[in-house]
Amino acid sequence: MPKTYQTLAAEKKAQQWDKIPKAWRLPTEISISHDASNVMDILRTCGLLNETEASITSDYDATAILGQLKAGEWSVEQVTVAFCKRAAIAQQLTNCLTEIFFDDAIERAKKLDLEYHASSGGKALPPLFGLPVSLKDSFQVRGYDTSTGLGCFVGEPAGENSALAALLIDLGAVLYCKTNLPQSIMTGDSDNNIFGRTLNPRNKFLTAGGSTGGEGALLALRGSILGVGTDIGGSIRVPAVCNGVYGFRPSVGLVPHGGVRDLNPPGTDGVLSTAGPLSTSLRDCSLFLKSILQADTWKYDSTSVSVPWLDLKPKPKLRIGVALNDGVYTPSPPVRRGLKQAVDLLRDNNDIQIVPVNLPDVKLYYQDYVRYMTLSGSDVSPPDPSSATFRLTEKHYYELFARTSEPVIPSLKATGLLSLPGTTLQGFFDLNARRAEAAKTYLKLFRDNDLDAIVMPPAPHTAVPLDTWSTITYTGLWNYLDYPAIVIPVDRVRDIDSADDLSNAKFGPDDEKLYSLYTGPEQYKGAPVCIQVVGYRHKDEALVNAAAVLDSIINKI
Amino acid sequence: MPKTYQTLAAEKKAQQWDKIPKAWRLPTEISISHDASNVMDILRTCGLLNETEASITSDYDATAILGQLKAGEWSVEQVTVAFCKRAAIAQQLTNCLTEIFFDDAIERAKKLDLEYHASSGGKALPPLFGLPVSLKDSFQVRGYDTSTGLGCFVGEPAGENSALAALLIDLGAVLYCKTNLPQSIMTGDSDNNIFGRTLNPRNKFLTAGGSTGGEGALLALRGSILGVGTDIGGSIRVPAVCNGVYGFRPSVGLVPHGGVRDLNPPGTDGVLSTAGPLSTSLRDCSLFLKSILQADTWKYDSTSVSVPWLDLKPKPKLRIGVALNDGVYTPSPPVRRGLKQAVDLLRDNNDIQIVPVNLPDVKLYYQDYVRYMTLSGSDVSPPDPSSATFRLTEKHYYELFARTSEPVIPSLKATGLLSLPGTTLQGFFDLNARRAEAAKTYLKLFRDNDLDAIVMPPAPHTAVPLDTWSTITYTGLWNYLDYPAIVIPVDRVRDIDSADDLSNAKFGPDDEKLYSLYTGPEQYKGAPVCIQVVGYRHKDEALVNAAAVLDSIINKI
Repeated sequence: MPKTYQTLAAEKKAQQWDKIPKAWRLPTEISISHDASNVMDILRTCGLLNETEASITSDYDATAILGQLKAGEWSVEQVTVAFCKRAAIAQQLTNCLTEIFFDDAIERAKKLDLEYHASSGGKALPPLFGLPVSLKDSFQVRGYDTSTGLGCFVGEPAGENSALAALLIDLGAVLYCKTNLPQSIMTGDSDNNIFGRTLNPRNKFLTAGGSTGGEGALLALRGSILGVGTDIGGSIRVPAVCNGVYGFRPSVGLVPHGGVRDLNPPGTDGVLSTAGPLSTSLRDCSLFLKSILQADTWKYDSTSVSVPWLDLKPKPKLRIGVALNDGVYTPSPPVRRGLKQAVDLLRDNNDIQIVPVNLPDVKLYYQDYVRYMTLSGSDVSPPDPSSATFRLTEKHYYELFARTSEPVIPSLKATGLLSLPGTTLQGFFDLNARRAEAAKTYLKLFRDNDLDAIVMPPAPHTAVPLDTWSTITYTGLWNYLDYPAIVIPVDRVRDIDSADDLSNAKFGPDDEKLYSLYTGPEQYKGAPVCIQVVGYRHKDEALVNAAAVLDSIINKI
Repeated sequence: MPKTYQTLAAEKKAQQWDKIPKAWRLPTEISISHDASNVMDILRTCGLLNETEASITSDYDATAILGQLKAGEWSVEQVTVAFCKRAAIAQQLTNCLTEIFFDDAIERAKKLDLEYHASSGGKALPPLFGLPVSLKDSFQVRGYDTSTGLGCFVGEPAGENSALAALLIDLGAVLYCKTNLPQSIMTGDSDNNIFGRTLNPRNKFLTAGGSTGGEGALLALRGSILGVGTDIGGSIRVPAVCNGVYGFRPSVGLVPHGGVRDLNPPGTDGVLSTAGPLSTSLRDCSLFLKSILQADTWKYDSTSVSVPWLDLKPKPKLRIGVALNDGVYTPSPPVRRGLKQAVDLLRDNNDIQIVPVNLPDVKLYYQDYVRYMTLSGSDVSPPDPSSATFRLTEKHYYELFARTSEPVIPSLKATGLLSLPGTTLQGFFDLNARRAEAAKTYLKLFRDNDLDAIVMPPAPHTAVPLDTWSTITYTGLWNYLDYPAIVIPVDRVRDIDSADDLSNAKFGPDDEKLYSLYTGPEQYKGAPVCIQVVGYRHKDEALVNAAAVLDSIINKI
């Protein structure tokens, strides 16, 4: 008889616990059941990190750590141990990890240190030499499960690495853990029946976001300074928003996505998932993109789109479109304030020209986006096993869950994605034809305004209470169009961010309902406020360059 | 009452005739009804071209002509008139043109000449300054029909230029005519009910190929030295083979394809058409690609894939895979001989390493390719107007033909494409999933053998008798995988190319049947023999570089 999900979960959690050395375990009184809603300080106060480890993990971004590693200031082992330890603590505080392979990582680190000495002082080191990189659970790492939090996939270790994992290893990175995500990988709450829910380290009553929520929490606690997620509607950017880190959704195909497990039916087309980084600095998004685009991605992944890194010169002047909202949902008071604050700083800068823009027809396109997400349909009530629609759904959602009798998580139920009708081939072509028109409209917006980027909110709200993140119009638009987009943290919810009158929500009843979610600063304490910077399709390098300029102005870096 | 196709054809042919100045008309005894099977010499002997015009159009490729134009050796008007005149003669010999706009071209040429003088001697001239470029009829040129040879689209002049036409104009090119293609744009014979059939100038009993057959014939007669076609299964490469010119199918999206009329249902996905050049030299394929990739293609076409030109250094050594056949059809004796001759020359060169390769599973992939081509189905016997399948077919083939009561051309009937069942959304996903596996297999072939390119036949035969080109396995494979491929002419059918025993066709009855088409050198007199050079997806620049090296060795350029 197959194991139930409860048994599998218990076994998996026990394995996780075993992978954390005793010396790295928190005293029970400050473990995951702690009372504080914000655990950010515990890393500093728990006493498990020595001074050097605290400094390595606290005071440097990936670019700076690489500099230290390549200069021989720190050994790879030293850096790896520091991040493994910090990730172990983060795990105990937020439940952000899935697979833990600290032992393998430290062993690899030692080998890299030997190579370093053999190379006599840093010559010809690979671009990411010795850099610890964490991966969302859906990436395959040889020898470890890619369960994606589903009972039915537990105990099936990957036979080979995902394309990106293989590439990162070849680039010199040290992989040391994988991170949590939601059941189905399609919600804004990283919660599943095997690993449980990842908590937001800044406020455990707010969501850590999804689907790359484990990375979000891990990065916020600096248990990683470079994590990789995937994004088909906002799955990198939503957790970046919730946890206050940088998150970059590149154009599809630029970063190898081969061998990533998602629960779409094989061969599904339309809107595609893309892999990208979460980081603690904007320049680390650059570092990631540059390292990947300078490599022969095509050798790793037959679906690669070979747009190379061009070492573009920074533009002296930038024209930045500003969209205050998406015409579907009104941003909550802290989001409006954060955007205004950022745009005011940009407007004051002589090198930035602000161009107010409206985003055309987002509501219409979002409807089509949702249709793309549910091409095969998911309406199993009443189930009709003879229909092709049911066959797909059954196979790809309910059937997977049913194998170990696991229930549907609350946030997945809430999305409504499990009760939508599918479409036909003609319906799919109609979606494509409408999207082709949308692409022309947005090309015109960028071209005719001569825009280098658009600045807008990444969502109509900050992190929200658990299981209430219900819409991704602000992020999903760019997946629909396949435009690159970066989330930049600009502030936190402050006492001045009072909830205001519902009449400010001017786009109808759905908008009002969402707007009412913001109840004022108290409940949202610690929630980061972010902006989103969007570039043109395939102009990812130009986007990271422009975003770096904006970030330096807004965050005074 | 709407006009019949006969009326529309008569009107259109009369318009065409009016567009050819009297002084450029051939004496009736050497007009299109001439007896000679090969009309290549008539251009030289007809006396319509003066010495300079003959030299401009005969002795230079596009790169050289550009050099002369930019150096001020020739005026744009002079070059334009020479090519207009030569195209007019080619039209009278082979029926290769559709829309003729010599007047506009000459007017534009005069303007460019003024600009040239204003720019004081050639500084900051656009990359294709003054170069005459011909376009397949399916490209829109403002003010002219894009009938694609269908009665129902006659008399509907385009309101705007196709993306590529607009880009070429911005790059300085002079557009002067559009060229013939088959009804449906889906056969190997450029024949339709409005313009009639384009003849092969080297042998009028053999096909001029399709679907870019008008360009093929025009280029062979040097009524153009740079023409642009489209290729979804071989439509650039087949006419290149038939007419003995260079033909390059780039990866999808690199050359803007927006605003090209094809008869696929809007939103069709799967295997996509791509735009590319036909030319009289390999370096002109390079010139074309470079000029396009250095431009901001994204500004012209929202479907562009922005792979930039990198000015790659030529590789000192090349590893070239050689596939003697595709495992489906056995090449005819002249094709085998031509390939062997070319490969022998390459093998003798110290900078080339030959790697024998087999192309895996082409038969299987070709079946899927055909399914991609008929996703919406075309089985209208018995017609069922209530089904979605019929709706599409009706709209996109038969219904278009029915509007002016035009019959189906013989080569379209012969393809069988009009009587295939369509598929479902699930069937489409299954095709995608199988293709993803195929892409991995072919990535492995390229990567594990460290190949720079594959050399193989472009077809199992040369140009064949009218309406008998029935298969495109050799070219379609690369559309299926979206790999760039170039056709290089290497020889002609010679007296030594005797037909041999059917037992040489070892891949089954279909192979035997096709193999029997070759009856010996007499019937195939003048037919060019070509090779195909295939590169990896998106590595188009590397491919044109490699092909240039191979071309220089094989054709001793």
